[in-house]
Amino acid sequence: MKRADLQKPLQHHQFASDNYAGICPEAMQAMAEANRGYASSYGDDYWTGKACERLRELFETDCEVFFVFNGTAANSLALASLCQSYHSIICHEMAHIETDECGASEFFSNGTKVLLVHGENGKVDLGEIEHTVQRRTDIHYPKPRALSITQATELGTVYTVDEMQAIGEVARRFSLRIHMDGARFANAIASLNVAPKEITWKAGVDVLCFGGTKNGFAMGEAVIFFNRELAFEFDYRCKQAGQLASKMRYLAAPWIGTLESGAWLRHAAHANACARKLEKELQSIAGIRVMFPCQANSVFLEMPPTLMEALRNRGWHFYTFIGSGGARFMCSWETSDADIAALVKDIRELVQQNT
Amino acid sequence: MKRADLQKPLQHHQFASDNYAGICPEAMQAMAEANRGYASSYGDDYWTGKACERLRELFETDCEVFFVFNGTAANSLALASLCQSYHSIICHEMAHIETDECGASEFFSNGTKVLLVHGENGKVDLGEIEHTVQRRTDIHYPKPRALSITQATELGTVYTVDEMQAIGEVARRFSLRIHMDGARFANAIASLNVAPKEITWKAGVDVLCFGGTKNGFAMGEAVIFFNRELAFEFDYRCKQAGQLASKMRYLAAPWIGTLESGAWLRHAAHANACARKLEKELQSIAGIRVMFPCQANSVFLEMPPTLMEALRNRGWHFYTFIGSGGARFMCSWETSDADIAALVKDIRELVQQNT
Amino acid sequence: MKRADLQKPLQHHQFASDNYAGICPEAMQAMAEANRGYASSYGDDYWTGKACERLRELFETDCEVFFVFNGTAANSLALASLCQSYHSIICHEMAHIETDECGASEFFSNGTKVLLVHGENGKVDLGEIEHTVQRRTDIHYPKPRALSITQATELGTVYTVDEMQAIGEVARRFSLRIHMDGARFANAIASLNVAPKEITWKAGVDVLCFGGTKNGFAMGEAVIFFNRELAFEFDYRCKQAGQLASKMRYLAAPWIGTLESGAWLRHAAHANACARKLEKELQSIAGIRVMFPCQANSVFLEMPPTLMEALRNRGWHFYTFIGSGGARFMCSWETSDADIAALVKDIRELVQQNT
Amino acid sequence: MKRADLQKPLQHHQFASDNYAGICPEAMQAMAEANRGYASSYGDDYWTGKACERLRELFETDCEVFFVFNGTAANSLALASLCQSYHSIICHEMAHIETDECGASEFFSNGTKVLLVHGENGKVDLGEIEHTVQRRTDIHYPKPRALSITQATELGTVYTVDEMQAIGEVARRFSLRIHMDGARFANAIASLNVAPKEITWKAGVDVLCFGGTKNGFAMGEAVIFFNRELAFEFDYRCKQAGQLASKMRYLAAPWIGTLESGAWLRHAAHANACARKLEKELQSIAGIRVMFPCQANSVFLEMPPTLMEALRNRGWHFYTFIGSGGARFMCSWETSDADIAALVKDIRELVQQNT
Repeated sequence: MKRADLQKPLQHHQFASDNYAGICPEAMQAMAEANRGYASSYGDDYWTGKACERLRELFETDCEVFFVFNGTAANSLALASLCQSYHSIICHEMAHIETDECGASEFFSNGTKVLLVHGENGKVDLGEIEHTVQRRTDIHYPKPRALSITQATELGTVYTVDEMQAIGEVARRFSLRIHMDGARFANAIASLNVAPKEITWKAGVDVLCFGGTKNGFAMGEAVIFFNRELAFEFDYRCKQAGQLASKMRYLAAPWIGTLESGAWLRHAAHANACARKLEKELQSIAGIRVMFPCQANSVFLEMPPTLMEALRNRGWHFYTFIGSGGARFMCSWETSDADIAALVKDIRELVQQNT
Repeated sequence: MKRADLQKPLQHHQFASDNYAGICPEAMQAMAEANRGYASSYGDDYWTGKACERLRELFETDCEVFFVFNGTAANSLALASLCQSYHSIICHEMAHIETDECGASEFFSNGTKVLLVHGENGKVDLGEIEHTVQRRTDIHYPKPRALSITQATELGTVYTVDEMQAIGEVARRFSLRIHMDGARFANAIASLNVAPKEITWKAGVDVLCFGGTKNGFAMGEAVIFFNRELAFEFDYRCKQAGQLASKMRYLAAPWIGTLESGAWLRHAAHANACARKLEKELQSIAGIRVMFPCQANSVFLEMPPTLMEALRNRGWHFYTFIGSGGARFMCSWETSDADIAALVKDIRELVQQNT
Repeated sequence: MKRADLQKPLQHHQFASDNYAGICPEAMQAMAEANRGYASSYGDDYWTGKACERLRELFETDCEVFFVFNGTAANSLALASLCQSYHSIICHEMAHIETDECGASEFFSNGTKVLLVHGENGKVDLGEIEHTVQRRTDIHYPKPRALSITQATELGTVYTVDEMQAIGEVARRFSLRIHMDGARFANAIASLNVAPKEITWKAGVDVLCFGGTKNGFAMGEAVIFFNRELAFEFDYRCKQAGQLASKMRYLAAPWIGTLESGAWLRHAAHANACARKLEKELQSIAGIRVMFPCQANSVFLEMPPTLMEALRNRGWHFYTFIGSGGARFMCSWETSDADIAALVKDIRELVQQNT
Repeated sequence: MKRADLQKPLQHHQFASDNYAGICPEAMQAMAEANRGYASSYGDDYWTGKACERLRELFETDCEVFFVFNGTAANSLALASLCQSYHSIICHEMAHIETDECGASEFFSNGTKVLLVHGENGKVDLGEIEHTVQRRTDIHYPKPRALSITQATELGTVYTVDEMQAIGEVARRFSLRIHMDGARFANAIASLNVAPKEITWKAGVDVLCFGGTKNGFAMGEAVIFFNRELAFEFDYRCKQAGQLASKMRYLAAPWIGTLESGAWLRHAAHANACARKLEKELQSIAGIRVMFPCQANSVFLEMPPTLMEALRNRGWHFYTFIGSGGARFMCSWETSDADIAALVKDIRELVQQNT
């Protein structure tokens, strides 16, 4: 771990990630409310039960719900419950499970291989999925068993209801189980303005990892099994993998707080709106190009390396989009108009200086 | 996960576990203070750096520090960094890694075997360790590589400085690395009244899992490597295993809050004192026997099964001590005099009714 | 690996193990016959198909058959197909999977815990199985899922048909799947003189690891699933675990050679008879005690350490029976009357010298 | 496993694989010679020691040698000794560990990721290796730790001494350990006509998996550590992974038989010569194109799908080269002039019929 240094505690200039944001008031308030005296541990408590019910209501089905600490664990454990070690998982080449979880899927499943497909705008190409399934059907190659879909995608786009249904059909045809990485599921719902069931179990999704962290929690994700059979003994799996919180009320409470208040959707809609605003302000600036449709809470910009460097020199935090000379600007529940204005102002100035 | 039911949110009658307790004020306050605006993620932030420094100061050495979500993960990841899959870990038969982590050590290390030794009062017998190491030295049996010590033990006792030094010597003699499960390390320090270094690195401990959860955090443990070489790439290990918090400031802040205020030791001392008070009140009651020296925050009582049942009927929560006809009463930072008085009163009444 | 030294190639004085014996003529002949020109690889060949048929005939049922390289792999892969990582396997404390496979079961199953029961003469105690299943039923401890039975046992005893049926009943009652480690299955059949089905699928055995190596093969075991559902994708499991032989005909052919000729049973009966003969010769010698009923191909003798040492000084190889001051003398298909006579003569002489 | 069917035992018309070939006389003879009486098990025998010495002489260095059952296990165990679960292995996209071992590397290493690079003629592109190492250096992506080189390659080409030295340099620069998959190492040596040390330890190779199976053994590969430190406890690793043969003399003896007689190189040279002969005969036929330089024992031909089908209808076995409309014809120690003549004749006839 890093040494404490002279860096200031707070990053005022950042569009780096929605995980730079803090805890939203509704989540914090719910944790405080849950913090009144003793409660049974390991999920056998009032708040955990209540949070599960709220999620069942949200999805309008009797799903099985588990709370784990973070997204890598949620995805990996969910996938481990779908796959054996000699199976494979098909996902987009930009999927978080491939690019940013340090081999966690392979680790938790004891060797399951991740097979990559391409696809425009961060969405899987159905033809490539079919090709990947059919390319090898012998025992010398891991057998495709799960399809992992990221919603919203890593490129800030969102699968439509129709697209999800088409994915469900392909999965059914090839007996693939569907995992949805929903680290930004709220942003997808806010973007599509549909009932959550429309892009999950009605489209054939077996298990959803519904993210809390990036939408304003201190930490915590919900693993939601629409296919209840696959949830069999998932509690043991979580326990063994170090993902059963003893004081689970603090993982559960933020769900109650944000679901009952509607904040989960309001915050996501806010972050989405910030991204669209940023996109709009920037698209008129010469030399900058928006790379993907802005459908969730991020904007990807193609810009000259010199501009990126100059922005960083002014203290801005953002991610370089690997291999593309692009930059990712991510909004969150906490992004303010002032943040957007300051960034736009700096970009404008730097572009003008250079021309 | 359980259905929400009619159970009351709070358990007013409990000595079940220190993880039934809530978040202590100092931890809560620190989380709130860390919740001011954006901060870099994955530990690259002010609070994480500061918490590491506070821990280095506490241990008076330049140790490597990592923050993970819970104790099972802390223990398992630490042990995985000491062992290969074909190694074995020696621990007391009552150790948490054996009895209550659902095979997590075996899982994270991909098969490492846990070998059990006996020992009075929950402390490992040095002769048995020696026997276990020497009993098999062929490649057909996992090779002992780590010794795991629980401090305070699962039976509420505490290894003295001398005992820890003797353990260190045995470990050195047989090239065993030492892991300390310190889920209740604060209680041990409060009990012994020594500098933390005395029972850790000065006694040869390679890695300590220092518990926050049971001492008043919402969640979180620190994995502290005194042997820095063993920490090599531990950050990768945490990431892959789903134990790298993105908003790490919320795992780090409670350490700052409780270390800077001294609350970490005050709370532990309080819990210990509660246990001693409870022990004192109960030892005069006929038909009840204190099973182990009360050196930390729990009291184990041998009592008739009918009495246990009657207590449960009055709403009391406590653990049955497996296989011994005993009951465990655990105190925490939140245990009050009223809690103790109520329990003692109920036990007295029930014993009198029965005689 | 060891350096080549001056040791003589052959061990003329040995009762160390049945794996010191060579390849029996029927197995060697079958390998030579299979060695005529090209054959399809990975089991898609005539000999593999034929060996499977011979085994189905032997067991009088349509079982699924796989050939793997050795017993550790056979047991571990079979168990991995019965268990998840958070499950546990119950077996006798002297079972080979516990004492002599270096944590292979834990490795192949990614952490499955092995739980030990006692029992006289190397046979599991049914009461202890029941106790072990019922002792813990919470998610903090691995869930018992498989029962592993060694037939013949590691102590040279054999479960009767009635005993196997009783085991089957216990397993059914607790939803435990039954794995049979049959490294010396042939010896058990030769001892009991029953149809193989009587102590396998008719008693509820789900999967049998039928040993070839110790009964005269160069190497190779058959994993036989009577419960065909559990064999689903077992071919993938073998492949991924490095247990799919490319030139599988050479693992399969010895089965054909020994099954069609009856040598599999004849050799086992011979080894059993040798053990009984040895037992008979030795039981009259003062100061030596036969430790367990001699029902298969080994004799365990309690004898003074000085005698053991003296025997070793005369060049005899045999195993020390760990923790008991005993010695194991193991016979094989290759054991000769001369071997027995020489050992008995040496023991007699050494005992007489000492008295 | 397949049912025995009406297929003929032998495939007279095959260029499918060198693992369709049988046991060569020298290997068979050596197994028979080792089959005289008892020998110590688990490698503590004369033949194992002697085979190790022969290999040390061949490589002119004091390497550590282990014998395992097959190539998948050899590669996976060797790689597991180079990597942790959060590391990655870089290899060519056509490498056997990627395409034909069903995720074994990931399984044995508990999740290690395999990263692919392109490169002409089946050889890794050094620039891509550099790019792959440098592309990601954060803890969110597995850290490159090993470079796996296949010699001869899967496309029948061979790295020259210079190429191996260049690879060694790149590996050194990025602290990558080098694993060589030498399933057809003998073919590479026969092709290059150099001392084995020139393309192994002198070029920086840490561990070589030297194949016996494809060069005329019934089964068996040697794992040879030139970097002896990496071999530490490899015996335990083999044991736990089900790769320690009890009657190891039968895995070791064929090495003695083929090394002492020179057959290992003679057979490889023969297979190489057969491939060159086949190439020569076919390159004059219109409509057929040799796809890669023929440097080892295989010929890859681009040919019309109708021709492939027609060949198969005449009973020929060969592999389709996935994704390229090509066909692989593999020669072995057993390939005869008659085999070549028959194949060439059939191809000629079929091509003429079609034109």
